[in-house]
Amino acid sequence: MTTAVRHAILISDLYPFARGLGLKLITLLTDFGLQDGYPGIMKGVIWGIAPDAQIADLTHSIHPQDILEGALALGRAAPYFPPGTIHVGVVDPGVGTQRRAMAARIGGCFFVGPDNGLCTALLEQGEPLQAIQLDQPRFWLPEVSSSFHGRDIFAPVAAHLANGVPLGDLGSPLAEVVRLTIPQPTPLPGTERRDRHGWRGQVIHVDAFGNLATNFTRKHVPDAPVICLRIAGQVICGLSHAFGEGRPGELVAILDSSGQVSLCEVNGSAAWRLKAAAGEPVELYWQD
Amino acid sequence: MTTAVRHAILISDLYPFARGLGLKLITLLTDFGLQDGYPGIMKGVIWGIAPDAQIADLTHSIHPQDILEGALALGRAAPYFPPGTIHVGVVDPGVGTQRRAMAARIGGCFFVGPDNGLCTALLEQGEPLQAIQLDQPRFWLPEVSSSFHGRDIFAPVAAHLANGVPLGDLGSPLAEVVRLTIPQPTPLPGTERRDRHGWRGQVIHVDAFGNLATNFTRKHVPDAPVICLRIAGQVICGLSHAFGEGRPGELVAILDSSGQVSLCEVNGSAAWRLKAAAGEPVELYWQD
Amino acid sequence: MTTAVRHAILISDLYPFARGLGLKLITLLTDFGLQDGYPGIMKGVIWGIAPDAQIADLTHSIHPQDILEGALALGRAAPYFPPGTIHVGVVDPGVGTQRRAMAARIGGCFFVGPDNGLCTALLEQGEPLQAIQLDQPRFWLPEVSSSFHGRDIFAPVAAHLANGVPLGDLGSPLAEVVRLTIPQPTPLPGTERRDRHGWRGQVIHVDAFGNLATNFTRKHVPDAPVICLRIAGQVICGLSHAFGEGRPGELVAILDSSGQVSLCEVNGSAAWRLKAAAGEPVELYWQD
Repeated sequence: MTTAVRHAILISDLYPFARGLGLKLITLLTDFGLQDGYPGIMKGVIWGIAPDAQIADLTHSIHPQDILEGALALGRAAPYFPPGTIHVGVVDPGVGTQRRAMAARIGGCFFVGPDNGLCTALLEQGEPLQAIQLDQPRFWLPEVSSSFHGRDIFAPVAAHLANGVPLGDLGSPLAEVVRLTIPQPTPLPGTERRDRHGWRGQVIHVDAFGNLATNFTRKHVPDAPVICLRIAGQVICGLSHAFGEGRPGELVAILDSSGQVSLCEVNGSAAWRLKAAAGEPVELYWQD
Repeated sequence: MTTAVRHAILISDLYPFARGLGLKLITLLTDFGLQDGYPGIMKGVIWGIAPDAQIADLTHSIHPQDILEGALALGRAAPYFPPGTIHVGVVDPGVGTQRRAMAARIGGCFFVGPDNGLCTALLEQGEPLQAIQLDQPRFWLPEVSSSFHGRDIFAPVAAHLANGVPLGDLGSPLAEVVRLTIPQPTPLPGTERRDRHGWRGQVIHVDAFGNLATNFTRKHVPDAPVICLRIAGQVICGLSHAFGEGRPGELVAILDSSGQVSLCEVNGSAAWRLKAAAGEPVELYWQD
Repeated sequence: MTTAVRHAILISDLYPFARGLGLKLITLLTDFGLQDGYPGIMKGVIWGIAPDAQIADLTHSIHPQDILEGALALGRAAPYFPPGTIHVGVVDPGVGTQRRAMAARIGGCFFVGPDNGLCTALLEQGEPLQAIQLDQPRFWLPEVSSSFHGRDIFAPVAAHLANGVPLGDLGSPLAEVVRLTIPQPTPLPGTERRDRHGWRGQVIHVDAFGNLATNFTRKHVPDAPVICLRIAGQVICGLSHAFGEGRPGELVAILDSSGQVSLCEVNGSAAWRLKAAAGEPVELYWQD
């Protein structure tokens, strides 16, 4: 169970009243950017149907068409929202084609968006899963474009869901949903040095500070021996407790707020320093 | 009637309850950017007067002083908001000079902002029009700066309007409001080829994906013959139904979600590919 | 008393009902950027505890770790929010170290964030001050990371404060809080020209338009003589009333909307034109 999932459970344990209050909470995650007003338009559509919905932007700066980046961002954020929150995700290169539109109950939350893997990281966090294919146009805008289903289908469906329309009314059961493969670390191959152990992974997310989150989590880090990380020809040994423990400019590894091993330059950008982006290989190893 | 206007009508037909709920919905569109906190300050002023107003950002990334860009963005977004929504627009190079401040009822919505053409595209969508010049300082902040009327005049006026203050109380009737000329396509001049017809237009908006929206709409596209578009030395023939129908990297033309003919690179940026910006000439033509 | 403070008083005089309505208004100011969804996560945590809180983003684009920039932005914005507003500020290079977490009542508003000087400009605006060190984990998320106290401590504390938990319950009294030194102008040293007077100051904020706000305010500007400003080898004489009074491309000085003397290029960027950033020295002088 990841840190995030544990948090989710704890939040709903602590604040069960959230559900009782009839909260209508909707989040938006897209690759639309902020310049053109598209996320604002989605809010207009939502408030036209569910005037009392509260709407939080997660991000609209997912790299265009980068479904995996969107899926991971949704996975990081969702556990911190109250039960019943409806997450609308639109990273949708297949819009207007035969790709399906979906809605699902995943754990304590809902997802509305294209069936293209965007909810993959959500699916790793929660069950049970009730998924439907959106095929009931009466819950959509009267006219549906071929390029902006966020406005024409997903926003109105989310608003109707917030209003209490049962998930099952919005479409037909979906036996299976598209899942992306989230890259997982693999054991380091044996070497001549038999006392050396570890994992081969990669950078999975670069945040706005230039911190490099890897796909190593707490479970890849042994309790006792000091671990080292090798990335872009550099080796960083030891896990710091906090950024502020290092000297400005120093490269440190920490267990970050999403439970991932992250490489950071204190008061700087590790991404810039190491010229590294998502996908960069990283090795985590230790010696007996 | 454009697609957007039809949508607006349909939305208000479908969701008339929005008006009855006493919804206080305000949108903000500015060229302030997001770094300095100015849009947030406007929200503070609004909530100080109308604590229960719901506020949606349309965009704060209009290019500085680009009134036409702001007008077009407002025109794209407004039809998707519930009746009664108050749109505050602040792209205002003349702030502090003799340019007038205005508020107007346009179709089912309200506009508050400078009288400099920013509501031009709204005016194309709806009537009747009741416009007033804002000249009642009792509805403004007590102290008015010469450079931030968004905070000192427009935000408080919008909040009072949301609270139910009649439009006519906020100022004096305005006989005419400033309108910009939105560039319109012109017929292609006759050539030696008498079987060739079409329009000369231009790119009117470049979105965050690098899609190039032209000022050609459905009415410029004939039903039968295949159209071609010439832009920056390239020719694209045929209208695709969706981005996803093309191969990645392919240039396609679609009828976009605002009802405009748009040039797009599948999973890429047509703006980057063609080195084209707003104003770039485009020809749309067909043969008998 | 600065313009901003006067406004604050006037707003609360005019709109006292804001307090009575039980408004739960929270603002967020961080250096997180908008790409990763961190501000959205904070909203999820807040709404999990205070489902009816209204949340306004001030800015999430403070330069990473630039506490002074964040403090000044908070100081500009806070006076325009209704009494009782809770400002959450997270520019926090010391997160996870021994730096204290704090909450305080400052004038009519509240601040929640790290005790690192981020509330310095707020402290210049209002008294009385009740400050506490956040040391009651029962008001935090159950699990606290070492790198995201915005999510794990500050957001939940702000939400509980909005719910009516007394400040004193959230922690222990804090005798003193960290204050930054906000650069102040100093008198120009005497020269051979005894008729020349003035101040030596600096650019203190560059906004998204490229306007250069200095730390000169109305009190540094004499009533009668014409002032001149020297910056980056250029001299600008006279204070314009508004941007729009100059010709496009002209450099003008105005008393800006925050009460600061600001250098602006009409319809352009003074920062770009003068290659100037925060910290750039500026002289303001006049002759008898």
